[in-house]
Amino acid sequence: MSLHRKPLPVPDAVNSVMNYKKKAEGEILPLEFCDNRTLAEDIVATHPVPPFNKSPYDGFALRSEDTKGLSKEKSGQFRVTETIGAGHRASRPIKEGEAVRIMTGAEIPADADCVAMFEICQTYEEDGHSWMSLKRPMERNQNVIQKGSETKESDILVEAGTKVNPGVKALLATFGYSDVNVYKKPVVGVFATGTELLEVDEPLEPGKIRNSNAFMIVSQVKRAGGEAHYFGKLEDDFDICYQSVSEALDKVDVLITTGGVSVGDYDLMPDIYEKLEADVLFNKVAMRPGSVTTVASYQGKLLFGLSGNPSACYVGFELFTYPIILSYLGRSKPFHQRIQATLGTDFKKPNPFTRFVRGCLRYQEGRVIVDPVGMDKSAVVSSLAHTNVLIMLPGGTRGYECGDSVEALLLEDQTGQQSF
Amino acid sequence: MSLHRKPLPVPDAVNSVMNYKKKAEGEILPLEFCDNRTLAEDIVATHPVPPFNKSPYDGFALRSEDTKGLSKEKSGQFRVTETIGAGHRASRPIKEGEAVRIMTGAEIPADADCVAMFEICQTYEEDGHSWMSLKRPMERNQNVIQKGSETKESDILVEAGTKVNPGVKALLATFGYSDVNVYKKPVVGVFATGTELLEVDEPLEPGKIRNSNAFMIVSQVKRAGGEAHYFGKLEDDFDICYQSVSEALDKVDVLITTGGVSVGDYDLMPDIYEKLEADVLFNKVAMRPGSVTTVASYQGKLLFGLSGNPSACYVGFELFTYPIILSYLGRSKPFHQRIQATLGTDFKKPNPFTRFVRGCLRYQEGRVIVDPVGMDKSAVVSSLAHTNVLIMLPGGTRGYECGDSVEALLLEDQTGQQSF
Repeated sequence: MSLHRKPLPVPDAVNSVMNYKKKAEGEILPLEFCDNRTLAEDIVATHPVPPFNKSPYDGFALRSEDTKGLSKEKSGQFRVTETIGAGHRASRPIKEGEAVRIMTGAEIPADADCVAMFEICQTYEEDGHSWMSLKRPMERNQNVIQKGSETKESDILVEAGTKVNPGVKALLATFGYSDVNVYKKPVVGVFATGTELLEVDEPLEPGKIRNSNAFMIVSQVKRAGGEAHYFGKLEDDFDICYQSVSEALDKVDVLITTGGVSVGDYDLMPDIYEKLEADVLFNKVAMRPGSVTTVASYQGKLLFGLSGNPSACYVGFELFTYPIILSYLGRSKPFHQRIQATLGTDFKKPNPFTRFVRGCLRYQEGRVIVDPVGMDKSAVVSSLAHTNVLIMLPGGTRGYECGDSVEALLLEDQTGQQSF
Repeated sequence: MSLHRKPLPVPDAVNSVMNYKKKAEGEILPLEFCDNRTLAEDIVATHPVPPFNKSPYDGFALRSEDTKGLSKEKSGQFRVTETIGAGHRASRPIKEGEAVRIMTGAEIPADADCVAMFEICQTYEEDGHSWMSLKRPMERNQNVIQKGSETKESDILVEAGTKVNPGVKALLATFGYSDVNVYKKPVVGVFATGTELLEVDEPLEPGKIRNSNAFMIVSQVKRAGGEAHYFGKLEDDFDICYQSVSEALDKVDVLITTGGVSVGDYDLMPDIYEKLEADVLFNKVAMRPGSVTTVASYQGKLLFGLSGNPSACYVGFELFTYPIILSYLGRSKPFHQRIQATLGTDFKKPNPFTRFVRGCLRYQEGRVIVDPVGMDKSAVVSSLAHTNVLIMLPGGTRGYECGDSVEALLLEDQTGQQSF
């Protein structure tokens, strides 16, 4: 692999990856297990809502024609025939001069057409019967929620491709979706490369660092909604590497490696792509960090060769791998939402390439502000912990100032957008 | 329970609940299982970062004093003694006139003090040795990342009370936290009440509706980070109800019931609180929806009596139960973040009470806009599915107009705030 690679502009790189997007198959899950999964079917109203004429209040159901002309001076007396709570039905249609004591949510009895709230009714007992006295006229349909007034049967309420949140779940339950068709999670394999890497539980050794990228990437895969499989660390030995990568490819939908894509003597990934006869989509992107990000396709599967540098690895995942995972999940808006925001802090670094700056979002008087995190060296290490946006600073400038309008990708937002 | 209850202002109601907040104990989890959990310990740098002087580039490590006076006209020749990749160390200190071929991330050999990048070096073979020729002077510490320059040992990097995201996980891995101390999830029991409720897999019957609130609430509990236990449906029978609630209280940290807190004849919860001798904090809140929301404490455990109306139930949870769950989780900012935003659509309903309107957030030219969802009747049913903010409209107005500045609670944001 030559030292000189031609850097691809970010949008072109994203598009070339998205040419290989796929949608996963559906699988049927019990309702209780489908939080945060993505619907592979529309939610259709399987009955009208409400399914019957319903009382919005506790009160008395009666015939509005029986209340004509009632006033403070002329009250009407209604015989209370029965009491119905939500979930119960009146035993028979209502007749002239009768009222049914009715609770919120209960079905309006046949031939009743309005509900007088408790607050305007006086009750009393007489002749061994319950009675209700009313001093005002009621209108037809007053305090009656009409059957189907909120939703007609067969209406599409939520479309396939929507993530299941508590509100979606309420709808699924309402319409009897005890089993739900959701898209399968894509299986995303992760390898770390680098002889310098120690396992997390190993003591530090001279010249070595602990493997943090693999844990970070697995966590990013889960946050995106994928199923992560960590295959461990690749040794810096070509044959073992090649063997491990080939075997892993059989078990995954997408394969991520971290490290080994630079031009150092021990960067093995380029040779592995070559031996696999994988099609390298690009091996250099016109951006910082993550310029060495490499993506290849092998028999329709994508191999993401992310940088070994933690920030570059993080950014490479969110730009290129994230929208692929969300495409597998059938999400109609697979990209991170990109918004305009105000830069809250100077960013004076001159910027020959497009830069994705780790940032944190805040709100101020109705405006969105983004602040770079980890600007000073001492904050670099912990900056990814506080990152919830990537601030996109186009190249070719001498730096940016507090108050400048910039674009930012929202990493924790559930809304997304359709194209990069 | 009297028909006339005194409504408590929302902030007072929230504060009275928060008087009962508790913090859960910690539990030790393997690193791979701690995504989205909350740290019960600070992350401390267990070693300096980088742990050794490190090369940021592929190149040649050498002594800067050997490069004094070098120029295009006067090149220096360095004997290349060995090659070291990341994770390996030079076999011996470097001597005058020597260079070590070094890869990104590798430790700078002893007595070397700078790195010349490949791009400015020429290599050749002579006398059976590898040589490198350099045509410019180097400065001491040029291209060397100093040990401890990013983080000193014992620095606190992330504080207890922080939710574990991919960046936090990378830090945990870097510093050898193979086991992590996180707060235990509070166990939140859920009962639905109401004879009108059918299970999700039951066919619709006259007068009945399917139980959707329980699924919604369980989903809200999970989204907040709690462990939800659904105990099923309470029958409209006092003794069975009382028994079920008493037994459940032994098994949970917090108990939620949906429905049964109104003033209808079948609303049993008030009598259950009374028989338990639970301390009712409030049974009416000056807000819409959810005015009947009732909260009681029993032997230090909170019982949330949420409304049976889906929107009221949803709002009651997010206002009162959510911050209690986040307090158990040790989160330092347990409340939903409240921001100023611009109302994107007229909301003309007169507003005697503070209203929490289901809404959806969008960004426009650096501003935050919130739109009410489900304004027209046909959207009421699906509105909770699209809700990601609650727009707070204070009472006492004749309605709000597009462009008005309003406050909104962010339901899907990870930032939170310290007080309501």
